[in-house]
Amino acid sequence: MTQASIITIGDELLIGQVIDTNSAWMAQQLNIAGIKVLRRVAVGDAWEEIWKALDEESKHVDIILITGGLGPTADDITKPLLNKYFNGKLIVDEGALQNVKHIFEKVLNRPMIESNLKQAEVPDTCKVIQNKRGTAPGMWFEKEGKVFVSMPGVPFEMKGMMNDFVIPELSIHFIFPHITHRTLLTVGIGESFLAEKIKEFEKGLPTQIKLAYLPNYGMVRLRLTSVGFDRIAVEKEIQEYFETLQQLVKDYLVTDLDEPMEKVTGKLLIARNKTVSTAESCTGGYIAHLLTTIPGSSAFYVGSVVSYSYKAKEDLLNVSKSVLETKGAVSEDVVIQMAKGALASIQSDYVIAVSGIMGPDGGLPDKPVGTVWIAVGNKNNIEAQKLYFRFDRERNTQLTATNALNMLRKFILAETAPVI
Amino acid sequence: MTQASIITIGDELLIGQVIDTNSAWMAQQLNIAGIKVLRRVAVGDAWEEIWKALDEESKHVDIILITGGLGPTADDITKPLLNKYFNGKLIVDEGALQNVKHIFEKVLNRPMIESNLKQAEVPDTCKVIQNKRGTAPGMWFEKEGKVFVSMPGVPFEMKGMMNDFVIPELSIHFIFPHITHRTLLTVGIGESFLAEKIKEFEKGLPTQIKLAYLPNYGMVRLRLTSVGFDRIAVEKEIQEYFETLQQLVKDYLVTDLDEPMEKVTGKLLIARNKTVSTAESCTGGYIAHLLTTIPGSSAFYVGSVVSYSYKAKEDLLNVSKSVLETKGAVSEDVVIQMAKGALASIQSDYVIAVSGIMGPDGGLPDKPVGTVWIAVGNKNNIEAQKLYFRFDRERNTQLTATNALNMLRKFILAETAPVI
Repeated sequence: MTQASIITIGDELLIGQVIDTNSAWMAQQLNIAGIKVLRRVAVGDAWEEIWKALDEESKHVDIILITGGLGPTADDITKPLLNKYFNGKLIVDEGALQNVKHIFEKVLNRPMIESNLKQAEVPDTCKVIQNKRGTAPGMWFEKEGKVFVSMPGVPFEMKGMMNDFVIPELSIHFIFPHITHRTLLTVGIGESFLAEKIKEFEKGLPTQIKLAYLPNYGMVRLRLTSVGFDRIAVEKEIQEYFETLQQLVKDYLVTDLDEPMEKVTGKLLIARNKTVSTAESCTGGYIAHLLTTIPGSSAFYVGSVVSYSYKAKEDLLNVSKSVLETKGAVSEDVVIQMAKGALASIQSDYVIAVSGIMGPDGGLPDKPVGTVWIAVGNKNNIEAQKLYFRFDRERNTQLTATNALNMLRKFILAETAPVI
Repeated sequence: MTQASIITIGDELLIGQVIDTNSAWMAQQLNIAGIKVLRRVAVGDAWEEIWKALDEESKHVDIILITGGLGPTADDITKPLLNKYFNGKLIVDEGALQNVKHIFEKVLNRPMIESNLKQAEVPDTCKVIQNKRGTAPGMWFEKEGKVFVSMPGVPFEMKGMMNDFVIPELSIHFIFPHITHRTLLTVGIGESFLAEKIKEFEKGLPTQIKLAYLPNYGMVRLRLTSVGFDRIAVEKEIQEYFETLQQLVKDYLVTDLDEPMEKVTGKLLIARNKTVSTAESCTGGYIAHLLTTIPGSSAFYVGSVVSYSYKAKEDLLNVSKSVLETKGAVSEDVVIQMAKGALASIQSDYVIAVSGIMGPDGGLPDKPVGTVWIAVGNKNNIEAQKLYFRFDRERNTQLTATNALNMLRKFILAETAPVI
């Protein structure tokens, strides 16, 4: 099977100033194309380290994809290094030059400086990959049967090159087997209990099918992966195992697709032609944000009220002042009033309301950091539940959102017949 | 200088199913402690690959930090591999056993199964790192002067071990130089123009000070890094260069700290004892979410209205139906009415309102995808601006939020005298 390594270049990766999202995305695309990623390596903007990484990775794999270090500034050394590594000399590429000029004249509407023009220079030993979304061209090199591709580190530019050129070109160059993944999402069962439940299933898997557990705070995804040259047979076989797996975990199954909770709940609403609104305190708009990350979310999402202060809860959601004072903002009564208030003012079919203490401060003896009340429902019925998380602010917020979306999902399913 | 490599283990990293946030966080902590991260490597749950990574990385560095592959399921092979790699045999660690029992009895309140108890087994060649936040213990090995530390892949558990044990223990083991970083944030100038502006400054930097450009969609961070054994001298020297740098980019400078835009705007509000609310359409609560990611944000943030539908704009923000119909939701008139409506119902000092088309669908001939109207202001004055982004849904949303927060920052600064 054709194997690849991904090398990401940049000091910022080694001091943790940015999170590397590029290599995850590239790995996804390579996998879909049938290329196995063997390793991912991050190195700094240092000549010796980049050189060594090129040497080492090309020993073990057929394809080396490189991102980063192509900017116009002095800390960007990838291009001169590749020029030397592949024994080239730098020449101006006419296509890249026209592109740089076009971007400055038409898109940015700014004069160019010398360093911008230099971006059009490439080693004469490479095939140039034009960058439709930025000024730095990509470079495709071949050496001793191995392919090396250098792309900019800006995700938007890299993605354009991968989709438009690199993946199609690799598919011409190599013969790839068919790789397929099936992923399902469970909520409400720990990894080890899930493993116990499907122990026999796992033992009985043929060697070409691999099972992986992907736990993520209250959720566990299970992934089956299979590889082979007979596409139809591979798909048929994995489908059978995947159906068995779904049966085994059916009590905890949220979706048989690799998609996030907000999409599962959104699709359920769309299927029933219903809408939702949210009334958020502690999550500060995060549930609304998750729902609106989905393209076309206006089909099921109407609006939200984020009521962070007592006064906003009273003014925007009509929560009673006396209840706030006697029960506190993080209470069953308040979260139910928030839900009712949102339904009254936003007029959606369903509502999610949350109020809690996300930390690090604000905990009380009887309501420690991580205490959350969640309410879901509609005009006929509101259900509330108290949960307790023991993580940091970010994770407590994520868990609250996941649980709230899952509560609404279950509420809708319990209330309505499945739509075929 | 003491050098480290980070090895992250898991098939999910190589098919891009999860984004590796662990190694960025670990790199940050190592840097702060004075340890240089030379490389980061991700490998799959494959015996040979993990073994090879251990061999290779330990050739070049003194410290090898490993995360992942310590779960209770069959795809987790890190522990047996390390047991073999360091010629040990597996024994039950009494502390780890008590911890597993405690977690099941007191925290999870569930019976244990055999695979949970197995988590208390460790190689007899390691020092055990107790896991206060989960069931898998960490392991500290030493071999030929190199330190190898294995930790769980769950971020919350890994972070606890790093803070409580690994960093303090490494600081006892090795003598580290002092590393220091100074980062500033600019908005509104491209990377190459910034580089042109500070060309002479960059040329004049002493060899021990490194400058890096970290561009991120409309923002560029500039980072100076210096290393040395004389802490006072290192700090004094970098401070002088950093002050010069700030002067050079002062027209675009947003903050001289490494902090996100929402924090800059939040701190400005706190310093003036003022509050803000948001009225969001296209960003769907994302600006509210950003503001509330900051601990203690209730000091300056009151609440928000997310008005995704026409009706929600009318009902919650009192936007006029006729203006919506004649001008459209993405218009100057609507965004100003949204701002006024939020100020009237939420009663904050300042307001941010946004309405736009984030894509991929919904574009119109005169309002293509990426068109956004932003309004900021207070009860005396509202300023509105039209912007146009050309990215995907996620990036358009991020850029809208960044620009809106920056517009408010400038509005506040223009209106008020600086607070000393």
